[in-house]
Amino acid sequence: MERHPRAPLRADDTPRFEDIRDAAARLCGLAHLTPVLRSRSLDALAGCELHFKAEHLQRAGAFKFRGAANAVSGLDAARAARGVVTQSSGNHGAALALACRLHGIACTVVVPRGAPRIKREAIAREGARIVDCEVAQADRDAVTARVLAETGGELVHPYNDARVIAGQGTAALELLGQIGRRGDGRPPLDVVLAPLSGGGLMSGTAIAAHGLDPRIRALAAEPEGARDGHDSLAGGARIRGRPADTVCDGLRAELGPLPFDLLREHAVEVLLVSDAEAVAAMRLIWERLKTVVEPSAAVPLAAVLKHRARFAGQRVGIVLSGGNIDLDALPGLLALAR
Amino acid sequence: MERHPRAPLRADDTPRFEDIRDAAARLCGLAHLTPVLRSRSLDALAGCELHFKAEHLQRAGAFKFRGAANAVSGLDAARAARGVVTQSSGNHGAALALACRLHGIACTVVVPRGAPRIKREAIAREGARIVDCEVAQADRDAVTARVLAETGGELVHPYNDARVIAGQGTAALELLGQIGRRGDGRPPLDVVLAPLSGGGLMSGTAIAAHGLDPRIRALAAEPEGARDGHDSLAGGARIRGRPADTVCDGLRAELGPLPFDLLREHAVEVLLVSDAEAVAAMRLIWERLKTVVEPSAAVPLAAVLKHRARFAGQRVGIVLSGGNIDLDALPGLLALAR
Repeated sequence: MERHPRAPLRADDTPRFEDIRDAAARLCGLAHLTPVLRSRSLDALAGCELHFKAEHLQRAGAFKFRGAANAVSGLDAARAARGVVTQSSGNHGAALALACRLHGIACTVVVPRGAPRIKREAIAREGARIVDCEVAQADRDAVTARVLAETGGELVHPYNDARVIAGQGTAALELLGQIGRRGDGRPPLDVVLAPLSGGGLMSGTAIAAHGLDPRIRALAAEPEGARDGHDSLAGGARIRGRPADTVCDGLRAELGPLPFDLLREHAVEVLLVSDAEAVAAMRLIWERLKTVVEPSAAVPLAAVLKHRARFAGQRVGIVLSGGNIDLDALPGLLALAR
Repeated sequence: MERHPRAPLRADDTPRFEDIRDAAARLCGLAHLTPVLRSRSLDALAGCELHFKAEHLQRAGAFKFRGAANAVSGLDAARAARGVVTQSSGNHGAALALACRLHGIACTVVVPRGAPRIKREAIAREGARIVDCEVAQADRDAVTARVLAETGGELVHPYNDARVIAGQGTAALELLGQIGRRGDGRPPLDVVLAPLSGGGLMSGTAIAAHGLDPRIRALAAEPEGARDGHDSLAGGARIRGRPADTVCDGLRAELGPLPFDLLREHAVEVLLVSDAEAVAAMRLIWERLKTVVEPSAAVPLAAVLKHRARFAGQRVGIVLSGGNIDLDALPGLLALAR
């Protein structure tokens, strides 16, 4: 069903390019306009021109603030008064907590046991209420449903939500604007890559890129140990309930139904990398860009380095998705890539 | 003896504020104009307003490029043809190698055994010739003298050189310009801090700050395990030959005679911090600014956090001196601050 042009975007709508432009206007002055980072030595290593969108420098340390703030900003007064609820092992929870604090809205985050300490602390620091649950998706869903019933609050799902997807798409839109068109009429980038988990960032990225110029390729990068996204798109049906096994703690979610449809519509291909490749790429980003990203954020660079021939000489955009890493876990991570 | 206003700055001149302005003009378009980084959460932690000058994002990953490039840019054709020589365990060597490569000048770096792998590799990557020597200062000097005699080249000392000091001073000058005066006529910063080792950066910083506005305090920060600078200035005589024992590998040099005189003239006070305090501050910078600095660069923040009352409510500038850290050494470093 066609939406009325002025109707507010609902969670279960299909997000369009216009929704991303609306979100960008709404986030102006609320989200950081993050810089684009370059490195001559990484370009030489990859054999292409790399443009890193520094979303790990976004508020709350991840692109997630864009989607959360877009969803929260659009709530009417009655819904806002009942508060907002989500489930998250990390960056989305902290981002939603911050967005709610800025808008004076109550926020409850359902957090699975074993979530990284630094991410749990960030949620608490922003003043959200934390409700614990078990790791299994079934328990996450049960506890979230209970909290929603108790509070009458609004669910802002980390990725299966059109408002969130439209917000995440503003990162790629902004990146393309920052680079600008080339003199010969080609689009700002030949290809844009983002990590794939639940699919919110990746579908927003594809909609933004293709909305601006259909010649831009949108590619996803996913860890081998959480390749449900790759396998779901390859098989044409969403794989459910497969346990994730990867050190990329931001990429363990299951591809959501709305992102699944959007990624199919936009013919997004998924490149797979091992944990060792992700950690080696993370190390390169730390050493060459002097900037702290979490393992999940390095998965697209790992994919470019693995499939070098596909990107040779091209202008490549990469969304550095987040920078919330527990430094105490670093020795174990670095040992993986040795 | 007064210098002729148009005479080129020589290694053994006394550098003045005008020399720093000349250096800034010479470095324009050659050195990076590095950003100033801020963090709300670090400000809250320190109880003051912190402005970090990101010289770890300078070319070759440290402020050292400023001094090296200023010295090399000023060489006449005859001297340039004979090449340049220095001794360095790290950042100065790589910076001089890069400056020479950009100017097509031959460069030899005398490197003590045990220098960090990442810094040795950076020197080689820029195409300089590496000559090994022992760690003891006497052997460093003997080997450097031999190379100078063999090549007839120009010594560009890492800190005891007016051209180098003038170059290093451009970091603070640029920082002050980036911040700008406050509406009430106060200077851009109340205080500026830099790490102290041989004294090149610190004396350039003091000359720049006091040249712009004598009300700006210039403070040095030094590791306890390499406190010859502190003790030399306190005792009024330069301490020689005391071995350094600190993980801050960029701060192990002995305060040079020219910087010693300049720091006395500018009444620069030195604050001391332990290695554990330096590493804890480094970790804070990584986590809150999401940016990779080496332990030496975190020493000034450690000093601010240790002497919080002295900086309360003030506007504080800190030169983040470098970002060349060997990530393999990180687990051991982090264990120090636990």
